[in-house]
Amino acid sequence: MIRNYRMLIQYDGTRYNGWQKQGDTSNTIQYKLEAILEHLTGSPVEVHGAGRTDAGVHARGQVAQFRMDTELSERAICEYFNTHLPDDIGVLKVQEASPRFHSRYNASSKYYLYRIAFDKELHVFDRKYVYVFRGGKLDVPAMRRAASFLEGEHDFRSFCGNPHMKKSTVRTLYSVSINEEGDEIDIGFVGDGFLQYMVRILTGTLIEVGEGKRTPESMTELIEARSRILAGPTAPARGLTLMEVRYQ
Amino acid sequence: MIRNYRMLIQYDGTRYNGWQKQGDTSNTIQYKLEAILEHLTGSPVEVHGAGRTDAGVHARGQVAQFRMDTELSERAICEYFNTHLPDDIGVLKVQEASPRFHSRYNASSKYYLYRIAFDKELHVFDRKYVYVFRGGKLDVPAMRRAASFLEGEHDFRSFCGNPHMKKSTVRTLYSVSINEEGDEIDIGFVGDGFLQYMVRILTGTLIEVGEGKRTPESMTELIEARSRILAGPTAPARGLTLMEVRYQ
Repeated sequence: MIRNYRMLIQYDGTRYNGWQKQGDTSNTIQYKLEAILEHLTGSPVEVHGAGRTDAGVHARGQVAQFRMDTELSERAICEYFNTHLPDDIGVLKVQEASPRFHSRYNASSKYYLYRIAFDKELHVFDRKYVYVFRGGKLDVPAMRRAASFLEGEHDFRSFCGNPHMKKSTVRTLYSVSINEEGDEIDIGFVGDGFLQYMVRILTGTLIEVGEGKRTPESMTELIEARSRILAGPTAPARGLTLMEVRYQ
Repeated sequence: MIRNYRMLIQYDGTRYNGWQKQGDTSNTIQYKLEAILEHLTGSPVEVHGAGRTDAGVHARGQVAQFRMDTELSERAICEYFNTHLPDDIGVLKVQEASPRFHSRYNASSKYYLYRIAFDKELHVFDRKYVYVFRGGKLDVPAMRRAASFLEGEHDFRSFCGNPHMKKSTVRTLYSVSINEEGDEIDIGFVGDGFLQYMVRILTGTLIEVGEGKRTPESMTELIEARSRILAGPTAPARGLTLMEVRYQ
């Protein structure tokens, strides 16, 4: 009987070309998972991820879904994955879902975290997961003010890395929260969906606000301009982690 | 002018043969640090670590000391280290110390943490730093009772990995604290000094108490026996981290 499964996945994205299969590259998370299911069932199985993380981006709470004809238990499928996956990808849970469940279309929001550290702090144990910013201290209150202009429903074309994007670039950012702890600044983004590189371009722009290169108020005209070249640089992938995908 | 320096170091021990130079192996933390200072000054400099961590053991707060004839600032020496060290070793601080300061002889206590996880938890992001125990649940209250018998000044010869140890094997364990959080058990050891493999043999023995293979009360006779073969196995290096070296 064909069942629909939902899975919860973690990965250290450092070694991978992102979530999505692209052309014939096999070095993607999606490919690794599909290869294991094909090995298990003898026929191709497509795995749909909720968030299509870019090359080098990590996940602590990626959700994916696949349909498979099997009598194996959820636990057995989960163990089969973990026996065959490399150490830097782990499946936390496999659960049967309703036949209509789709990991991406049904997601109500996603939570991404971008971690910025400063050169004083060395982060031997998590330097693969933080962006070490060498430009000095950032003005966090100014970044918070800028973040408040970014929250809400907007056309985020200025923050979209794909210049040929034909579909709508309107998204809702429910919250952009900036936490400072010791020598680290973490920016949490919760939204209904994110365009290509959107979190990293938002981060690169907020860093420029923190450096005093932009005013918090300039976010409004930046959004209105709908032009990628007016926004800040794309912050490096290593600092970004998909933390959670939420369903209502 | 020859000055005495104290430094604070972190490392991921996975790739290394421990702290101490042994024979002609260059794959040790001590060797890496000394090679950089020799490169800087043009002559050999000896670096003395407070804790001689074993192969595969990590450190978040190792302290070391060296004497060097230099006019460079503390900050410049620190930056020189970090420019030349691989990513998995970091120097957090370099400070001039009093001429008589010795990182090992002056240490009043050391704090080691051993992390045990269970197979349900996958730990993609820190699996290099935990020992994944596959033998089922452990009886934590029994482990805590056993730990209370280990605390205090004892001859820890039963927990010494070096059968040819000629010096005193008497040490004081100030505290052995066991914390359970989710699917992880952490054992913190604070003592005035530790014998070779001592923390790992204590951990292996406490795990056997948690499995019901030993009683908490049997710790007393085990200490009195002064015999390594009566203690539990040496727990794997990956779960162990030197957290802090304290000076009075």
